[in-house]
Amino acid sequence: MSHKYDLLTVGNAIIDILVTVEEDFLVEQKLDKSAMKLVDADESNALYSKVGAATERSGGSAANTAVGYGYFGGKASYIGTIAKDQFGTIFNHDMDASGVDYTPIYVEGKPTSQSIILVTPDGERTMNTYLGASTDLGPEHIDDELILSAKTVYFEGYLWYQPPAKAAFDHIAKLTKGTDTKISVSLADQFCVDNFRDSFKSLIDDGTIEILFANEDEIKALYQVDTFEAALVENAKTGVLSFITRGANGAVAQQGDVTEYASVDPVFDIVDLTGAGDIFASGALYGLEHGMSLADSTKLGCVAAREVIQHMGPHPTVDIISVAKKAGLL
Amino acid sequence: MSHKYDLLTVGNAIIDILVTVEEDFLVEQKLDKSAMKLVDADESNALYSKVGAATERSGGSAANTAVGYGYFGGKASYIGTIAKDQFGTIFNHDMDASGVDYTPIYVEGKPTSQSIILVTPDGERTMNTYLGASTDLGPEHIDDELILSAKTVYFEGYLWYQPPAKAAFDHIAKLTKGTDTKISVSLADQFCVDNFRDSFKSLIDDGTIEILFANEDEIKALYQVDTFEAALVENAKTGVLSFITRGANGAVAQQGDVTEYASVDPVFDIVDLTGAGDIFASGALYGLEHGMSLADSTKLGCVAAREVIQHMGPHPTVDIISVAKKAGLL
Repeated sequence: MSHKYDLLTVGNAIIDILVTVEEDFLVEQKLDKSAMKLVDADESNALYSKVGAATERSGGSAANTAVGYGYFGGKASYIGTIAKDQFGTIFNHDMDASGVDYTPIYVEGKPTSQSIILVTPDGERTMNTYLGASTDLGPEHIDDELILSAKTVYFEGYLWYQPPAKAAFDHIAKLTKGTDTKISVSLADQFCVDNFRDSFKSLIDDGTIEILFANEDEIKALYQVDTFEAALVENAKTGVLSFITRGANGAVAQQGDVTEYASVDPVFDIVDLTGAGDIFASGALYGLEHGMSLADSTKLGCVAAREVIQHMGPHPTVDIISVAKKAGLL
Repeated sequence: MSHKYDLLTVGNAIIDILVTVEEDFLVEQKLDKSAMKLVDADESNALYSKVGAATERSGGSAANTAVGYGYFGGKASYIGTIAKDQFGTIFNHDMDASGVDYTPIYVEGKPTSQSIILVTPDGERTMNTYLGASTDLGPEHIDDELILSAKTVYFEGYLWYQPPAKAAFDHIAKLTKGTDTKISVSLADQFCVDNFRDSFKSLIDDGTIEILFANEDEIKALYQVDTFEAALVENAKTGVLSFITRGANGAVAQQGDVTEYASVDPVFDIVDLTGAGDIFASGALYGLEHGMSLADSTKLGCVAAREVIQHMGPHPTVDIISVAKKAGLL
């Protein structure tokens, strides 16, 4: 069948509160660097009162991937729940403005989710997420027709923390089985892998997850091995199409015996790594969908990620298509 | 008497919605470049729907000046009205976080004010302000003891558009007359000067305004002359202590026969001029208050302004004191 969307992403709709801190601050606050921590309203307020003046932007891992896909000019949509508040308004606007064809799903009783993102001088980000309205996402918000209108449905691993959202995933996986709509999952972070390893592994083994996104730490955690090479050996056995990001070392695409390495040009001033993995996925999926080779698709993801880490915030601030063209892609 | 605060600023408490646009967009939308336009909720929403993904930050001219003063390590406070909403929370946090000793004044019935700021490739900003809660500021929000606890009370000229806020100014001017609390006013923008020229001129002539801040366009508009030099001749006659900013040409301080010129080092990549004039005032007032010469105080303002125009948003993103030290000041 013909599809309305190339990509439909599903995730926690979040407003990012970006603030710069020194390394010491993470130690004082006993935070795991580069990880996402779920906090309640009191913890969120307490942390907020300790940090400097901030910048607010729309975020959320899978939302960033849809936005990135929109910036490439691709046909993307998004599912996530927000509240009718000012943060919800910002979220809606930024989705629309980046070309994502998105219908807001409003829920009541909680504010739009927000994440205080502590950016250290090395550009790493440590996230403290207060999950409000986004946690209400469940099977009742899933429009089967919308799902089947997409070539790929992409989920952020963070959803596994929320049983109703996981139920929505299960429903979608069942619905798309045997259709030409593919399921893709991003492993979110290392702690998420540690918490839900069995689920992710079995979904890979039984072929439910058809396109996997992970970074180096996450793929090692998935297979509980100490080296990247050992993780690649294990991952090859599954046959799942995988994209694995490696920071300054670029990224690797793998499917069974096929392994493609993409390098990335050096970045002299890494400002903020927020959204790097998310927009990598936009680029890789856009490339695959638009007839590019596996190697070039991986490279396209790297080029996009390289752009967003050079400024604060997860969205490109320059025309990403021009950047890709300069790199000899698109 | 001894004073608790060096600086107390009074203005519209605003959240800035910063977004990059091309020059053509301003023409299409029939907007006066570099000016502030007041818009209603419908106009604000219509404009917002036409612009790309944005960055949100706390702003407001006089608020930025207090924040800048706080970043210098000075003792500043602020008066402005907000709503109990998410934008109000952001505003409060950023004031506190920058060291401003600030007690929120909440009003009901309208959201916290917001301004969609269109930043063109030359870094100029064109502001479209939807005045919500900030317009309720009036004499009833003025704590006389707080006013007299400040060495300087600084007002943004935008307040002249709102009769209750102007009444608050009149009350404060009367209260401080004959005390050692000084009154300072920033002329806001050229259109504001055109609208309220007689009021500003008479307040200068009768000695109510003791420290005046303006840019080149504003001072020319004030005296209705065509050249900067002619404006200086007129301004000298008033004897008011004045700081006049000139963009890449630095700034001038003037009081009667005394005129001091401060240059500014070239900036290779102007990103966003939002808040440049506001933090210039922070630096100039901080210098004056801390025993610096008129020339060095003007230079300190220039150095601070030069920092904020190199990134999006009105607040410094680096340690402003180190920047000033590198420039041989502080």
